[in-house]
Amino acid sequence: MTVEKNIDLKDIITFLDNSLIAVYGEPESVVVRHLRDPEHVDEFTLDWVNPHKPDKQKIAETSRAKVIIVDKEVVFSEILKNQGKVLLVVDNPKLAIAKVGNDFFVEKPIPGIHPSAIIHPDAQIGENVYIGANTTVGKCIIRNDVSIHSNVTLYDNVTVENEVIIHAGSVIGTDGLGCERDKDSVLVKFPHLGGVTISENVEIGANCQIAKGALSNTVIGKGTKINAGCYIAHNVVIGENVWISPHVKITGSVKIKDNATIFTGCVIREQKTIGKGATIGMGSVVTKDVPAGETWVGNPARKLEK
Amino acid sequence: MTVEKNIDLKDIITFLDNSLIAVYGEPESVVVRHLRDPEHVDEFTLDWVNPHKPDKQKIAETSRAKVIIVDKEVVFSEILKNQGKVLLVVDNPKLAIAKVGNDFFVEKPIPGIHPSAIIHPDAQIGENVYIGANTTVGKCIIRNDVSIHSNVTLYDNVTVENEVIIHAGSVIGTDGLGCERDKDSVLVKFPHLGGVTISENVEIGANCQIAKGALSNTVIGKGTKINAGCYIAHNVVIGENVWISPHVKITGSVKIKDNATIFTGCVIREQKTIGKGATIGMGSVVTKDVPAGETWVGNPARKLEK
Amino acid sequence: MTVEKNIDLKDIITFLDNSLIAVYGEPESVVVRHLRDPEHVDEFTLDWVNPHKPDKQKIAETSRAKVIIVDKEVVFSEILKNQGKVLLVVDNPKLAIAKVGNDFFVEKPIPGIHPSAIIHPDAQIGENVYIGANTTVGKCIIRNDVSIHSNVTLYDNVTVENEVIIHAGSVIGTDGLGCERDKDSVLVKFPHLGGVTISENVEIGANCQIAKGALSNTVIGKGTKINAGCYIAHNVVIGENVWISPHVKITGSVKIKDNATIFTGCVIREQKTIGKGATIGMGSVVTKDVPAGETWVGNPARKLEK
Repeated sequence: MTVEKNIDLKDIITFLDNSLIAVYGEPESVVVRHLRDPEHVDEFTLDWVNPHKPDKQKIAETSRAKVIIVDKEVVFSEILKNQGKVLLVVDNPKLAIAKVGNDFFVEKPIPGIHPSAIIHPDAQIGENVYIGANTTVGKCIIRNDVSIHSNVTLYDNVTVENEVIIHAGSVIGTDGLGCERDKDSVLVKFPHLGGVTISENVEIGANCQIAKGALSNTVIGKGTKINAGCYIAHNVVIGENVWISPHVKITGSVKIKDNATIFTGCVIREQKTIGKGATIGMGSVVTKDVPAGETWVGNPARKLEK
Repeated sequence: MTVEKNIDLKDIITFLDNSLIAVYGEPESVVVRHLRDPEHVDEFTLDWVNPHKPDKQKIAETSRAKVIIVDKEVVFSEILKNQGKVLLVVDNPKLAIAKVGNDFFVEKPIPGIHPSAIIHPDAQIGENVYIGANTTVGKCIIRNDVSIHSNVTLYDNVTVENEVIIHAGSVIGTDGLGCERDKDSVLVKFPHLGGVTISENVEIGANCQIAKGALSNTVIGKGTKINAGCYIAHNVVIGENVWISPHVKITGSVKIKDNATIFTGCVIREQKTIGKGATIGMGSVVTKDVPAGETWVGNPARKLEK
Repeated sequence: MTVEKNIDLKDIITFLDNSLIAVYGEPESVVVRHLRDPEHVDEFTLDWVNPHKPDKQKIAETSRAKVIIVDKEVVFSEILKNQGKVLLVVDNPKLAIAKVGNDFFVEKPIPGIHPSAIIHPDAQIGENVYIGANTTVGKCIIRNDVSIHSNVTLYDNVTVENEVIIHAGSVIGTDGLGCERDKDSVLVKFPHLGGVTISENVEIGANCQIAKGALSNTVIGKGTKINAGCYIAHNVVIGENVWISPHVKITGSVKIKDNATIFTGCVIREQKTIGKGATIGMGSVVTKDVPAGETWVGNPARKLEK
């Protein structure tokens, strides 16, 4: 069902390197083949114990895997020793398994531009770039090690920095539809002449829409992850390492500061600021500025008192 | 405006067969040509009387159609007799007209793979499969009698069972973006190594996003209908005959049991369970488990007392 | 960053014509090159003063631009005179800059059908039509001066009137998934045999889904703007100059009257009517008819008393 490999445990130990606190048991000539969910763990699984679980010692001792990533609260008990287990001890096993999974098990697309992709003749495309089938790229700048999946549309004037991933069906650089009504209520669209800047290491989920700025650029900061089906309006400026869950709607000129977390389906009102490290609960409708570090929830959103 | 045919009423009577309670009037050599909305009904319309309307007898007696599908409460009155009408009596006229419409009037796409579709060389494609223009199919298994419309993207590791329909612009098997923050708040994506299973007779609307599982599969059960613009996260398990309205957001590892109904724009929190036959009102934000058969509404959602 | 031109100010004055109340200063042989946001205004910017700002005179007097569009409350002071500025006085500077921007600075796509677009042989395509890469058009009628961007899907039976713009990734004419359950709870889809009518001057944002009517057409009225990611269900009838923000969900058979404004992320319940000129606040869930001219907000939405 999932990816199968043959990976020498020594390579994983080398990779984890200075995040490793200790290794117990005998890691020599051990091979791991896959990551698996708890019900399907076998001898060749690289298993891990979620640090938030209450009964971590017991989870480790009943795992069928030979190799388990654990935190410091799990001890190398007689039971584990007698089972011939190998424990890799780290501060955050979830983080360690994520990093190992991404590096050893996830298959990255092979660089190259699919012949069915349509690239503007004046687009600049860097090295090691993957562009999927039926994707359309306007007059854009694409740096190195970028992956753009299938059926994506990049309008003109989008800059995509190194190591960005854009998933299928997303549309980047489209017009916002901010309007002004004339005397007869006829809608006149405000012109959109700016672009979009997507910084290093950003990942954008499937079927997102990111509008270009009206007169300057819409900006997505370094390391930010935007999940599927989100809308990012004109002139929004998102900081670094912001985590945006699916179907979040961020309206015109909103600012979102570094390390904020916005859960599924929220709406953020135009011109508002979400402070550094703030958290917005799922389904919230934010109509005011949210100060740094606070958690807001509800429709309309209010501060959640602990 | 709508589809025109020449259908012998006898063929419709044969098709309805054991759901027919009675036929009144003279169905011989009657031909019907189309289904129409109430304002445009004419002599050649196959008309029907909604069983929820209060004045069903009068609706039938003032219809311009020769043939009308009704329930048992409509009688073959002198008026109907003198008008030369034909009544087809069934338990649920709405269900009967839907079945007749689908079978006699809806034009199915002609099987075949459009030359502009891009299919992975290792994909397995069954018989009588339609794949539309500019669609991209990864290393997937597609069974028989499947229709995949235009501009769809299937990532690798998606299994599509018999008689599934996937509408345009949908993305199936994309990565979820569940993340873990490291000590510097940098987001590390949890690897997604699973796939997606779409069971028999499922229909998926336009521009949906369905994420693959992290370590096992995301599963959509038999006969379930997912309307346009929905998001289904990693490791969600949806049962049979679940009806999901447009733009519903179902987050990670949620379970939805058979026959549940979820109305437009809801958000369901990760790990929660929606019980068998439960109903979730439009725009609800569900943060708790919902027991079988209950109706919940609001943000946050609460049980609706009758 | 944005578009650069060389435009003779006289041409702009001629274009604004009878919306111009006065011109102060010496417009002869002045050239403007771009529109810019306030931080980047320079001598060659065509600048404007937002009529809603409190300190308009000071904004005009500190602008670095030579030419500024203002309303009647800004006077041609000694300071402006001595700076050699040109003031264009109009009733609504925001409307004027929008119109000038659209006409002089926005680059329209060059008419033509991209070779990768797939057009049904029986589709009727008018004059000056642009159809972007990887777009799929069924048996449809497309009138004149229409722009359809990349990766769009039009199912059969969609009529697109003059000067319509459809952005990337949208799906028009898809099936709704209205269902009837049979005795065993199996979902039977109601057939969709109608189409979609998109009237003159409509603009549809990226990744929208518009369903065809069941037995008649879904209709979008003249001049209406529908922003990105919206869902418009079967048999919805939208009037003229309706402004719909991103990710609005309008369910089956809803009627929206002329000049209404619906903000981001709302859900409108099936069969309801939004009255002429009504306003619905962001994130609202509308479960009742909204009378003309009223403003409703919340979940469920209620009238906002001023």
